[in-house]
Amino acid sequence: MKAYTKYLTICSNKKVEIINITEKVKEAVEASQIKEGLCLVNSMHITSSVFINDEEEGLKKDFINWLEELAPYNFHRWLHNKTGEDNAHAHLKRTIMGREVVIAITKGELDLGPWEEIFYGEFDGLRNKRVLIKIIGE
Amino acid sequence: MKAYTKYLTICSNKKVEIINITEKVKEAVEASQIKEGLCLVNSMHITSSVFINDEEEGLKKDFINWLEELAPYNFHRWLHNKTGEDNAHAHLKRTIMGREVVIAITKGELDLGPWEEIFYGEFDGLRNKRVLIKIIGE
Amino acid sequence: MKAYTKYLTICSNKKVEIINITEKVKEAVEASQIKEGLCLVNSMHITSSVFINDEEEGLKKDFINWLEELAPYNFHRWLHNKTGEDNAHAHLKRTIMGREVVIAITKGELDLGPWEEIFYGEFDGLRNKRVLIKIIGE
Repeated sequence: MKAYTKYLTICSNKKVEIINITEKVKEAVEASQIKEGLCLVNSMHITSSVFINDEEEGLKKDFINWLEELAPYNFHRWLHNKTGEDNAHAHLKRTIMGREVVIAITKGELDLGPWEEIFYGEFDGLRNKRVLIKIIGE
Repeated sequence: MKAYTKYLTICSNKKVEIINITEKVKEAVEASQIKEGLCLVNSMHITSSVFINDEEEGLKKDFINWLEELAPYNFHRWLHNKTGEDNAHAHLKRTIMGREVVIAITKGELDLGPWEEIFYGEFDGLRNKRVLIKIIGE
Repeated sequence: MKAYTKYLTICSNKKVEIINITEKVKEAVEASQIKEGLCLVNSMHITSSVFINDEEEGLKKDFINWLEELAPYNFHRWLHNKTGEDNAHAHLKRTIMGREVVIAITKGELDLGPWEEIFYGEFDGLRNKRVLIKIIGE
């Protein structure tokens, strides 16, 4: 069994932003030289997500607007913000979008469906955050 | 290490439907002959889900009604539908339900709790979709 | 390839409670003697969750209050409760929080970000429930 570990550093340009990281994950799979296995991609932070969906600008805006309805910024509503933070909403938004994805590797490639793209979802950005790619297999 | 890959093709009978796929995953585990490992089951589409919950008709209807409240069809509300699609809601519903599950394999079997059943959740159906089962272990 | 399996039994003190299980997962990783691999941690029940977020009391209360808004107890609203259960809401809450996490193991340790802590989220507690830890690697 082989294992491969890669850390990406991402600094978003906006406080809330959805960033396509599919190519970076493909590069890691190639570098790993693993042909059959599993690829974990996760945010190492608790106010951002890794998820799979569609590369379409309108949908990315829909996600951001929808998350703001389900888990609004609303500073005074959340107890967590009494600690001096203002990012309680980001912890909740990330929970809906998910921390991680696990993707099959088949014949040396990410075994993705035709429209599957991998995204980093940032909900408290404008600073360096890390994403972990861990691949195991043979 | 061994790896086993299986693609299921599923065509739902309704636009939105929850379909129990536990037996099909069990068959794949048996075919893999893997005794200890991990089993990934994921939708290869971005408008459907794989998730684990309870095989109970009322609960399945509750899920569908609840998702319609949290992420309504509401054609004119979503920017994604300006692309000619009408399935923005399905992308959002699938996000709540999740893309994938990872299940332990112990002593040659899915290591599920007493009520855990594996479901395919379709939110834009009536056409062929694929589910990927990837098993690695020994 | 090595595999390690551990079952935790958890009995919450409240019907709804968020319990930090990070130390228990670390103990399992150490016992496994696996240096590079993947660690799956999942609830074996369909009314509770395993998820990663922040160890902060206010945030834990925010999560519980927020889930009660998104998926209220509301006995008469859910068809599932006609079966004699009253825990439909718990099935829904657990869906938002997620069933499982998959964590990389690097150099013999859980490869967690600085604030990542692992939680068991109970939504129908006051009775014994099980969590599965499955580690594979080398």
